[in-house]
Amino acid sequence: MTSASPTPTSLDAVPAAVETELRSFFDVAVPAAAEIAPVVGTAAELVRDFVLQGGKRIRPVFAFAGWRCGMTESGRADSDAASSVGREARDALRVGAALELVQACALIHDDIIDQSDTRRGHPTLHRVFQSRHAAASWAGDAAGHGVAAAILAGDLALAWADDLVHDHRPGVSDTSRYRALPPAVGATWAAMRTEVLGGQFLDIVNEASGDDSAAAAYRVMEFKTAAYTVARPLELGARLAGASEILVATLRKIGHDLGIAFQLRDDQLGVFGDPERTGKPSGDDLVSGKRTALLATALRRADDSDPALGNRLRDFIGRPLDEDELGSARALLVDVGAVAEMEGQIDDLLGAALGALDTADIGDDIRSELTAVAHRTAHREA
Amino acid sequence: MTSASPTPTSLDAVPAAVETELRSFFDVAVPAAAEIAPVVGTAAELVRDFVLQGGKRIRPVFAFAGWRCGMTESGRADSDAASSVGREARDALRVGAALELVQACALIHDDIIDQSDTRRGHPTLHRVFQSRHAAASWAGDAAGHGVAAAILAGDLALAWADDLVHDHRPGVSDTSRYRALPPAVGATWAAMRTEVLGGQFLDIVNEASGDDSAAAAYRVMEFKTAAYTVARPLELGARLAGASEILVATLRKIGHDLGIAFQLRDDQLGVFGDPERTGKPSGDDLVSGKRTALLATALRRADDSDPALGNRLRDFIGRPLDEDELGSARALLVDVGAVAEMEGQIDDLLGAALGALDTADIGDDIRSELTAVAHRTAHREA
Repeated sequence: MTSASPTPTSLDAVPAAVETELRSFFDVAVPAAAEIAPVVGTAAELVRDFVLQGGKRIRPVFAFAGWRCGMTESGRADSDAASSVGREARDALRVGAALELVQACALIHDDIIDQSDTRRGHPTLHRVFQSRHAAASWAGDAAGHGVAAAILAGDLALAWADDLVHDHRPGVSDTSRYRALPPAVGATWAAMRTEVLGGQFLDIVNEASGDDSAAAAYRVMEFKTAAYTVARPLELGARLAGASEILVATLRKIGHDLGIAFQLRDDQLGVFGDPERTGKPSGDDLVSGKRTALLATALRRADDSDPALGNRLRDFIGRPLDEDELGSARALLVDVGAVAEMEGQIDDLLGAALGALDTADIGDDIRSELTAVAHRTAHREA
Repeated sequence: MTSASPTPTSLDAVPAAVETELRSFFDVAVPAAAEIAPVVGTAAELVRDFVLQGGKRIRPVFAFAGWRCGMTESGRADSDAASSVGREARDALRVGAALELVQACALIHDDIIDQSDTRRGHPTLHRVFQSRHAAASWAGDAAGHGVAAAILAGDLALAWADDLVHDHRPGVSDTSRYRALPPAVGATWAAMRTEVLGGQFLDIVNEASGDDSAAAAYRVMEFKTAAYTVARPLELGARLAGASEILVATLRKIGHDLGIAFQLRDDQLGVFGDPERTGKPSGDDLVSGKRTALLATALRRADDSDPALGNRLRDFIGRPLDEDELGSARALLVDVGAVAEMEGQIDDLLGAALGALDTADIGDDIRSELTAVAHRTAHREA
């Protein structure tokens, strides 16, 4: 964080700027871990590589967008000099970078829970640790060691998220230190972490209890995706900029609608997406039996029209499918009207978000950029 | 935290005062989790109960002791009014309470890693979640669900630790809010979390790679126990009180020596301790094959005197032992001189800590209390 990253002039520039913040953090954090022992440094490097190897940086983009909304609200108390704006922009980037570390913990631990082998085309972290155990011909259970190491690696990412957001760097002068989080930002940060963990917990309980209702799927979406991915990041940025409670409430509503639309699009891509573009196997959600709103809606509609149809659909969920079966399952989802119902919901949610954006008290540049992001969020193909 | 806890007048009063702080935190945090969904509230309650069900509160005691050392350093810049001292005392208690939440994460995740069934006479948290799964006759693998839920529960405890230490309570007025952590305290907090996770990681790598040397055991002790349990808590408290760098360095040295002595005593109790007092099975460390300094020293001394003796000792490590075998193993540890060597080390470490305490620039009351704590740390029976 000694190397100043220029303030991004558009939301498209946020991912690269956030990666610069992350690299600056790792430049301090990884050597600190290596001082404990070389193998701890290696583990820290694996966490760093996991964070830097990809992702859309969607949470930092929304955090930075929220900050720009707050900065351009009319009647904002202080109109800072450019240097102060530059400093506050870095606050927004830093919070975005910290969100990526929370997400790293969530993904690393989720991959353990789901026993996933790959993530973004790379082996998952517990599999990496397992392979290192096997390659070194160590004693004991390699898979167990991989899980143990990845639990600790995820914990490290979560602890690092807080270190970064609170700027706990040793030996940094107060002038080059980040601002302390204003209390309202801290409370939002706390709520966001409890929400994503709560959403994940609710997800595994729904899976265990066999609750495949649409209501259960929406509840998980609300906390695991909508709040965590869009609404809270927007709010964090807006509160950093000192936005009014009215604007914060508007952005949270926009974030909720876009967040649900984001997940509903994800559900469609999970069944109909092009593996070349999504990086996930064809029909992944069907095969894995993920309890999505799309499948819940399809099951309800099929059962309502003909119980035999519902059972036919259930037979395609949660097992490997060949191309013919996948085609039949997809046709069923279309025929019972579930795909159209979800597309209608996405359009409604996008429309509500765009309407709120239109009248929000924010600058025209960020309004236009967020409008483009909203369309992409609802209608992306990957 | 709305209910004011009186400033503890002695270190013996710290555990109860810290539990009051913890309860106040849970009174806000558990309902916030329950708002997501009732099952999330239930998980939060299980984390709360885990934290409140026991433990010696050793880290909060050292954090509070460090604070009192800092407050009684001569030539301290400001001599605050009593009301301000009361507020700062609560800062020290809050940091101690947050340390207990870090420890909860460490224990919950450690119990998964070690596949332990019980902790402090209660079922471990992953077993609790597993039992709830079984009792509800849910679908799928109950053990896997237990692990998944406990990974998330540990994450929640770790996130809560930061929420508490940074006082991210919603809607609290600035006057009743805790002080922001001074930068040096924040940097110490960050270092402490990386150290305990790094120490745990080093521990599982040593186990996997079969490194049963004393050097490896001491390296794990240094980070997983000495820094995390004594040295960093003392430092956190001292820095909260604005202690000089000289006093901080003195307390860290004392903390290191006492922390290693604490662990060496733990190793002795792990083989020779009375199950009635320790709450652990007789000869637990031998049976579990824990790589302690005691066993490393015994193996080295046995191998040096007679390779056959070393092999006889190895035969007693890492498998169930009947009373006769346990007696033979214990006699071997004594006969090869390992027990005497460790007792000598404990005495040396205690002596060094007491010597440093004698000349430290701290008040006589806390010097005398810490001297008593040091003796208990090195010579406890449970």
